[in-house]
Amino acid sequence: MSSEGSKPLMFYTGPTPNGRKVSIFLEELKAAYGGPDYDIFSIDISTNVQKEPWFIKLNPNGRIPTIVDRARNNFVVFETAAILLYLQQHYDKENRFGFDKDADADNYSELLQWIFFAHGGVGPMQGQSNHFNRYAPEDIPYAKKRYIDETKRLYGVLEIRLSQGRDWLAGPGRGKFSIADMNVLPWINIHKHSMVESLDEFPLLKSWLERAKARPGVQAGLNVP
Amino acid sequence: MSSEGSKPLMFYTGPTPNGRKVSIFLEELKAAYGGPDYDIFSIDISTNVQKEPWFIKLNPNGRIPTIVDRARNNFVVFETAAILLYLQQHYDKENRFGFDKDADADNYSELLQWIFFAHGGVGPMQGQSNHFNRYAPEDIPYAKKRYIDETKRLYGVLEIRLSQGRDWLAGPGRGKFSIADMNVLPWINIHKHSMVESLDEFPLLKSWLERAKARPGVQAGLNVP
Repeated sequence: MSSEGSKPLMFYTGPTPNGRKVSIFLEELKAAYGGPDYDIFSIDISTNVQKEPWFIKLNPNGRIPTIVDRARNNFVVFETAAILLYLQQHYDKENRFGFDKDADADNYSELLQWIFFAHGGVGPMQGQSNHFNRYAPEDIPYAKKRYIDETKRLYGVLEIRLSQGRDWLAGPGRGKFSIADMNVLPWINIHKHSMVESLDEFPLLKSWLERAKARPGVQAGLNVP
Repeated sequence: MSSEGSKPLMFYTGPTPNGRKVSIFLEELKAAYGGPDYDIFSIDISTNVQKEPWFIKLNPNGRIPTIVDRARNNFVVFETAAILLYLQQHYDKENRFGFDKDADADNYSELLQWIFFAHGGVGPMQGQSNHFNRYAPEDIPYAKKRYIDETKRLYGVLEIRLSQGRDWLAGPGRGKFSIADMNVLPWINIHKHSMVESLDEFPLLKSWLERAKARPGVQAGLNVP
């Protein structure tokens, strides 16, 4: 089941913001370097395929996305941001989407800081907003409001970062489009689904999103699967 | 206000699990290498000192812990896990608590995977359990249960990892005590506070915690501030 296809990367994913972070980066890498080529294994999370024993062997957390790198001894990587950093290290040899850890240590650290900010903040909190506002079996106004408010607060933190004369979250000067941007973009892109009706309160974040979505790699990645 | 003391590192923190991840690592570094020495700036989060403009300039997210590295041109690092990775890169030159990104790429990736697992899972979800079970102004049984259940599920994922013949979360063989362990330890340590009454369901996690807490560095770090 997990061995379909023969391309260098096997990409287990689904139509979620976390899956799209990785598909965007894979498409950006393809546009920049011509590869790595990848097979897609589409996981139907509504039927809990990701909790089946064969998948738990790959990722004990039972979550997409997960990758298997056939070109590197079937090495398995889970956790979205760890996948982005792995792909950047092994497949972005010119550091077009990241920074050298040693030669460019401060920019590397800032990239990590914004990746962790999104991974521990925007993702989990916006995910809770979706749960209580769309999927929970009970109507709980306190929780609905709590997570919409927190999502907006976190968007405001990104707005502060962009207000420091920046086009992108990490990198010197106005910054460079990097995995720090890709790591949060698919969440911002579904703001309406998470009951943040408009980005008008966050004008710099709004133009950042438009700028990112103008990229062919981002457009392609948002359509996988 | 932010310039008190003169030691190489300025450490803004408080008595929370996230603060303790960093204090544990600083004490482990002190035990292993004799430094870096650090000043502590204790932030009273109950009065929202971390939301004051002078602190937002350091960390736009308004959270502890945050460090300023006076020995490296006052470079600022926020987000707990980014701080651990920064300190490991610059102050753990023998990789006693981590892995070389290039020479030991797969172990480095596994370390990142477990750091992200905790940063996006255990921390945010256990934090929500604390909120609804201890601090929320409304009694909401659904949310109380949701986050206790999710915290336990995540503990179960750590239990699976440890069941693979491991003493520690990352590293070859039985693993090596690393920042992957430090990054989740203070959350597991307050399991009772988060309404997970006992770790008996997770015997390997329970002995992992005991093993870690037997370390003098961990003991010292849990008492800062």
